[in-house]
Amino acid sequence: MMTLYYYPNTCALAPHVALEEAGADYRLALVAFERGEQKSEAYRRLHPLGRVPVLVTGAGVLTEVPAILAYIAGINPASAPSGAFELAKMYAFNAFLASTVHVTFAHALRAERWADDEAARESMRAKAPSEYVKLFFLMDEKMLVGPWVMGQQYTVSDPYLFVMSRWLRRLNLKIEEFPRVAAHYARMIQRPAVLRALELEGLTP
Amino acid sequence: MMTLYYYPNTCALAPHVALEEAGADYRLALVAFERGEQKSEAYRRLHPLGRVPVLVTGAGVLTEVPAILAYIAGINPASAPSGAFELAKMYAFNAFLASTVHVTFAHALRAERWADDEAARESMRAKAPSEYVKLFFLMDEKMLVGPWVMGQQYTVSDPYLFVMSRWLRRLNLKIEEFPRVAAHYARMIQRPAVLRALELEGLTP
Repeated sequence: MMTLYYYPNTCALAPHVALEEAGADYRLALVAFERGEQKSEAYRRLHPLGRVPVLVTGAGVLTEVPAILAYIAGINPASAPSGAFELAKMYAFNAFLASTVHVTFAHALRAERWADDEAARESMRAKAPSEYVKLFFLMDEKMLVGPWVMGQQYTVSDPYLFVMSRWLRRLNLKIEEFPRVAAHYARMIQRPAVLRALELEGLTP
Repeated sequence: MMTLYYYPNTCALAPHVALEEAGADYRLALVAFERGEQKSEAYRRLHPLGRVPVLVTGAGVLTEVPAILAYIAGINPASAPSGAFELAKMYAFNAFLASTVHVTFAHALRAERWADDEAARESMRAKAPSEYVKLFFLMDEKMLVGPWVMGQQYTVSDPYLFVMSRWLRRLNLKIEEFPRVAAHYARMIQRPAVLRALELEGLTP
């Protein structure tokens, strides 16, 4: 049995949904951010940076959402394209979410990672929402093929975009500004696996 | 024939080396950063964010280093592990380089992405080198298996780490601080494919 270390409504929700979609044999392990458990010595043995998610598999420990999603897609081949180029396009979208979209969001909530003084952190927090908006316009207009991220096939990119879309409201942004992203979100919360994952994390759609 | 859009000594050097290792049929296209060509309308049709690398393949356009490396590993299967878990570990390392190591470096050189005022940018630039050092200690002590990143097998993670290692000197940091990374670098510049890619970009080892 696999174990997914998570905290609710973080990027760990993407592999969580993917595990539900895969019908995988897994259990959840909550990392108590409130008690700083992600920075504990025990947890850092799983993830040296003290972040979620971590997926512990029979073969070993996996970190990094794009890699965990690629691994789950291997368990559930229906959730990834079969052609080499299309598969790489899916990896590209996931890499873009990880290193650009998520990183932009993190400047609003985790600015301490990149500057030591409070004024600089405040400056990052101030800029992050407008940059997040730009990235959503880009995804809405040019990247989301529709009805799913990659087109007709639902893939592990879909729960990952779903999480980034959920974060819009955490920046007081409105998903309705991005009609195709909003339609994608509405489609996602029709899926039983998505609803199960949300419920297990104590979240509402 | 594929085309790799690049600028010398950027992260595009990683797929460049990987293409050389693969013996792939490709040509290089220099994106003239000096003239701001990466921000031109023509280039943004290839890469909406105006960044390198882009790999144009017979099947379409690919962005994002981890995805391009995964695609090249498909062309050159000897450059990736064959087991599902080990392959995911390679993706995890590449994702870590893209979304944590490269992003940390970018705060030294591209701070304007994350703050509008000069004082905040200066604060990011000041912090970036010490954070980059921490990440290299982590890779040196816990992630680089040796002799190659993934162990006995040379994979597409190796040229990616090689680029990040080259960037140490751009932050006035010394690779000798990280003995296993330094040994990896020394091993890399023994490889004919690496030397060919460096020469094609007008770089010295």
